[in-house]
Amino acid sequence: MDYAHALPKEVREKFRTGELDGQTSGMCEGYAQANLVCLPRELAYDFLLFAQRNPRPCPLLEVSDTGSRTLHTIAPGADLATDLPRYRIYQKGELQGEYTDVRPYWRDDLVSFLIGCSFSFEGDLLAADVPVRQIEEGRNVPMYNTNIACQPAGVFHGSMVVSMRPIPYALVPKAVQITGQMPRVHGAPIHIGDPEVIGIHDLAHPDYGEMVTIHEGEVPVFWPCGVTPQNVIMASKPDFCITHSPGHMLITDIKNVNLKY
Amino acid sequence: MDYAHALPKEVREKFRTGELDGQTSGMCEGYAQANLVCLPRELAYDFLLFAQRNPRPCPLLEVSDTGSRTLHTIAPGADLATDLPRYRIYQKGELQGEYTDVRPYWRDDLVSFLIGCSFSFEGDLLAADVPVRQIEEGRNVPMYNTNIACQPAGVFHGSMVVSMRPIPYALVPKAVQITGQMPRVHGAPIHIGDPEVIGIHDLAHPDYGEMVTIHEGEVPVFWPCGVTPQNVIMASKPDFCITHSPGHMLITDIKNVNLKY
Repeated sequence: MDYAHALPKEVREKFRTGELDGQTSGMCEGYAQANLVCLPRELAYDFLLFAQRNPRPCPLLEVSDTGSRTLHTIAPGADLATDLPRYRIYQKGELQGEYTDVRPYWRDDLVSFLIGCSFSFEGDLLAADVPVRQIEEGRNVPMYNTNIACQPAGVFHGSMVVSMRPIPYALVPKAVQITGQMPRVHGAPIHIGDPEVIGIHDLAHPDYGEMVTIHEGEVPVFWPCGVTPQNVIMASKPDFCITHSPGHMLITDIKNVNLKY
Repeated sequence: MDYAHALPKEVREKFRTGELDGQTSGMCEGYAQANLVCLPRELAYDFLLFAQRNPRPCPLLEVSDTGSRTLHTIAPGADLATDLPRYRIYQKGELQGEYTDVRPYWRDDLVSFLIGCSFSFEGDLLAADVPVRQIEEGRNVPMYNTNIACQPAGVFHGSMVVSMRPIPYALVPKAVQITGQMPRVHGAPIHIGDPEVIGIHDLAHPDYGEMVTIHEGEVPVFWPCGVTPQNVIMASKPDFCITHSPGHMLITDIKNVNLKY
C-alpha cells in the first residue's frame, strides 16, 4: 500500500488505531511533517529559547497551549498523544521505551513543540530530478550526531543531529538552492562532503534511522535535523520528555509550499 | 552630518553619550536594526510564545539572558540600557515617558527581545531603484494600528502595527519580491492599497512616526512592523515594560545580507 497520495487525516487515523506504525518518509506528498518534543511547562521557556537560538535544527512550526493534546494551526484535528506512528519517552535523559500511543503517560503540564522536518523539501528535490535515496530504497533517513555545538539556553545544551542524503556531485548546487528556499524545514545543508569534519566517524552506522546506498560519484550532504532535541534531551537530562521516534513524524495539514511564504 | 556610512558601534557610542538621540532610518547602511522589548522574566515565556506565533510582526533576532544588558550575537559590545537613541517605559499598559538612558529603571529580572526591523530591506529597495520616501524626506517612517488580529499567547493579545511606504504602481511587484526574500525583517507586505481594508481610517495621521508624501501614481504598501509589541503591551497591560521609541532602533553588527541565509 502506497500512502504517497493519502490525505494527512487519513494516515493519522491509521496511526491512531494502530493499523500503521512505520516511518513516514514519502507519505502524504505535498504535506509538511513535524518532529515532536513534549516537555513540562517548567522547562518550556528554556526549550522555547533553545529553539529560538537554534533555528537551523529547531525551526518551530507551532507550540501548543500548556496541557493541550491538540494544535490550532498545523493539524487542528490531530491528537498529539495518538496520531504519530511511534513515540519515545525519556526520563532524566535515558530512553525508557518506544510506544505507539502515549495517552497513559500524558501530563496536564506538558507543552508540545512541533519542529519542521526535512522530509518537506524532498518533494521539491524529486520534482527537480534530485534523487532522494531513502525514498528510493524504502528506508528511514540516516541521521547522525555531530560535533556542531548548539547555542545553549537555560538547562538545554548539546550538539546538532543531521540527516544525510547522497547527492550526485553535479546536482549539489541545485540541492542547496532548492532546500535553501525552505528555512522553516531546516533550509540549506549545514555541511557538504567529508563526514569527519563535523565529527561523524562511521557513516555506515547512523545514530538514528537506517543507512542508504551511496553510489560512485555521489557526495554525502548533511542537513540540520529535528532529532537534535532528542540528543539535547539526552545531554541535558530533564526529568520527563516525550518525543516522536526518529523518522516517525506528525503529518500535518499544512502544504509544504505554504512554508515558503 | 550623514551617518549612512558610519559603523554601528560608532553610532551606538553617540547614543550612549547622548550626542545623538534621533530616529535611525538610513543610518549605518547595510547593517540590521532591531526593535526592543524588555519584560520581566515571569512574562517572558508568554511573550516568547507570542513572537513564535506571530513571526510576521515579531521575527526574533535574539533573546537576552535574564537580567543581562548585553547580547551574544547581534551586537556583542552594546549596552541595551544606553545604546538606543530613545526608549519608552510602559506601566500597566500606560506610556510613562520617553528616555535616552534607561539604566535607572533597569531590573535584574528583565529579558530583552530584539525583533527585526523593516529598515533592513530598504537598502535592497533603494539598490533596485524602488523609492523609500521617509529616507528621501528625512523623516521617521509612518506606522499605523490595524484591525489585523495577532494570535494570542498567554496574557498577550492585540492587533498588528504596520509601516507604510508609498510605491509607484509599476514597482509594487518588485518591492514584494525584494522584501519577500527577507522574512527575518518582516518579509513581504501584509497589505497593498486601500488602507480601510486593514482598519486604517486616516492615512494622513499615523499612530507612530511621521507622515510622508504620497505622489500621484503611487500606492500605499504596508509591512508588518516591530512596533506591534507596543500595541500589544498597551492592550495586555503588563506591570512593567521597556521598549525602544518607534523608529529609534538598536543598530546591530549583523549585516542585512546575512539575514537572508
